[in-house]
Amino acid sequence: MPEAAAPRGLEGIVATTSGICWIDGEAGVLSYRGIDIHELAAKSTFEETTYLLWFGHLPNQQELTAFAGQMAITRTMDGSVIDFLRTLPASATPMEVLRTAVSLLSITDPDDADSSHDADIRKCLRLTSQIAMLVAYFDRIRKGKQIVPPDTHLSHAGNFLWMLTGEQPIHEAERALDVALVLHADHELNASTFAARVIAATLSDVHSAIAGAIGALKGPLHGGANEAVMKLLYEIDAAGTDPVDHVRSLLANKVKVSGFGHRVYKTEDPRATHLRRMSNDLGTAAGNARWYEMSEAIEGFVRGEKKLNANVDFYSASTYTTLGIDMDLFTPIFAVSRIAGWAAHVIEQHDNNRLIRPRAEYTGPAYPAPYIPLNERPPSVPSVE
Amino acid sequence: MPEAAAPRGLEGIVATTSGICWIDGEAGVLSYRGIDIHELAAKSTFEETTYLLWFGHLPNQQELTAFAGQMAITRTMDGSVIDFLRTLPASATPMEVLRTAVSLLSITDPDDADSSHDADIRKCLRLTSQIAMLVAYFDRIRKGKQIVPPDTHLSHAGNFLWMLTGEQPIHEAERALDVALVLHADHELNASTFAARVIAATLSDVHSAIAGAIGALKGPLHGGANEAVMKLLYEIDAAGTDPVDHVRSLLANKVKVSGFGHRVYKTEDPRATHLRRMSNDLGTAAGNARWYEMSEAIEGFVRGEKKLNANVDFYSASTYTTLGIDMDLFTPIFAVSRIAGWAAHVIEQHDNNRLIRPRAEYTGPAYPAPYIPLNERPPSVPSVE
Repeated sequence: MPEAAAPRGLEGIVATTSGICWIDGEAGVLSYRGIDIHELAAKSTFEETTYLLWFGHLPNQQELTAFAGQMAITRTMDGSVIDFLRTLPASATPMEVLRTAVSLLSITDPDDADSSHDADIRKCLRLTSQIAMLVAYFDRIRKGKQIVPPDTHLSHAGNFLWMLTGEQPIHEAERALDVALVLHADHELNASTFAARVIAATLSDVHSAIAGAIGALKGPLHGGANEAVMKLLYEIDAAGTDPVDHVRSLLANKVKVSGFGHRVYKTEDPRATHLRRMSNDLGTAAGNARWYEMSEAIEGFVRGEKKLNANVDFYSASTYTTLGIDMDLFTPIFAVSRIAGWAAHVIEQHDNNRLIRPRAEYTGPAYPAPYIPLNERPPSVPSVE
Repeated sequence: MPEAAAPRGLEGIVATTSGICWIDGEAGVLSYRGIDIHELAAKSTFEETTYLLWFGHLPNQQELTAFAGQMAITRTMDGSVIDFLRTLPASATPMEVLRTAVSLLSITDPDDADSSHDADIRKCLRLTSQIAMLVAYFDRIRKGKQIVPPDTHLSHAGNFLWMLTGEQPIHEAERALDVALVLHADHELNASTFAARVIAATLSDVHSAIAGAIGALKGPLHGGANEAVMKLLYEIDAAGTDPVDHVRSLLANKVKVSGFGHRVYKTEDPRATHLRRMSNDLGTAAGNARWYEMSEAIEGFVRGEKKLNANVDFYSASTYTTLGIDMDLFTPIFAVSRIAGWAAHVIEQHDNNRLIRPRAEYTGPAYPAPYIPLNERPPSVPSVE
């Protein structure tokens, strides 16, 4: 029999120990391996942050050079996977393509059958490079453009923009994306990371765990929220209405406005602080502050009306749009970053494993319910609409 | 801050309410919608059991005929998915192929973008048929055999054996598989089902949830155990040793013997009772009781030595082998059955959703840890082997 009831959705319940990410939701603190996210956003890179998440300490120059170099040279992919992407209809959503292609990548991964600590790190490093490549490849293929081969001389963020656009990114764009990748890299036991750990805890492989995490991230209550924010901004823009009036009317009609509130943070999401500033800076630099200004107006109104703060998704919408990125790539880009955290959690789970298997509180027909013979069962009840 | 600590692996913790499956681990009871598994194993079919799991009551004749008919006519698959299977190397494991192909199926599913209750049921019905087809198709393709088109006149179990072997199954084999499918159809919040619910709880789609569940089932601590049991039986057979001596030596060397013990059951796994009998019956009927006899000897020894009971995996190994099924299809066949339960849980989760997002107990460096500038970080510590 189940021993202890928990709040629905395991809210506030500790599911595991972890040395990766510490969040103080009351104080609005997010930290990776104890280092505040504001420090990392200001000073770190995606490569360095990934090293920190995986190995537990900041790399010295030698370690960073080696790790970033390995990440760059693993920008390779079996030709069969690229051929597969070419068989897909352009209407396929980037998230279902990413989920499928990550699953497919296990078949050609040289460490497929090996779930040792070292093999896990090699697989995670490949997947970190390959997830970015898959997003860029499929976006170009679906648009009928030639794919752009990876450039091992660029940073992870820079190479992603290069493979996506075929143009050398300007410094400001590369740095903005790099900071966004640092900010999204981990967030403790969010739903996709938790899904990855539940899968990994059967001692299943890295690709299974990450494909599952991508499936969870795809949901509108998780990674899908930043795309929903941009849909709203486009909707307001197309209607030519005042953003505040528009949102007031949505709230009056009980329509949920995405990008606000968070299960864990009771104050401002510390990531939102940086994305707000980047959205503003990029908009100003591009001479197009429209999306930022619209977002700022909505944020102020929702904070006043609903006492809800903007979360990580809210300003990532205007930031990515100002970077020229299509709306349906926002959630895939979340995955381009979050693979760093998923990988850290899968490795940690495998290193000290325990099957994750909770119980359900049963609410169905009382046991033992009779097995009524087929010819004695009641006729169908017509459904009443 | 996290409010309540829980045992590692959420053991005994209630993660959700559910009206699908009731287990009494102390008494060795498993029931679907309140009906005892022994009743269902004796009297039900996979089609009827699936209806029970999804709709909460046994179908009357009209409902059963309609549901089984729908399951039969959804034995269809977009040609692009079969073409995809043909591109895969024969060395790909059936579980990674199944995980990838299920993910791929969303792209051609007519209800892909719709996660309403009715669309979920349509998608789950298709996946129930398609998972069986995928296992059979890939097995024939990897062996260089022609694929066998589905036969809508056969039962789900019968059609699966037909598509796998190209021969009309004898009644005993069809019924044995049918009972095995009933027995494996659901088991409350086992790891793969829980993974499916975590993914579905972001309001992600059915295909994401099921691909994640397949990834979890793939793990050696979950669905992979039946294959591990058969490996042991083959190992003993090849060595020509006495099964008990062999297992005694494994235990003496601290090697885990798969197929024994269960997180939930403290008595005999009620599914093992039926699989033991079927293994015996099928072995006797085939004039080859070797795998059964070897299993029985091991079971008696392990029960005596370790006070551990055989679980669902232990006798499914000899049962499937006697049915002529390859060892690496055992876990895929688990999925052919468990899709019924995964689907019921995903539908139930979507019907009354709450994001599943627990917390971790942080064990890493104390916050705030300093961001040490790159040139001040300590040199690498050489690893000592």
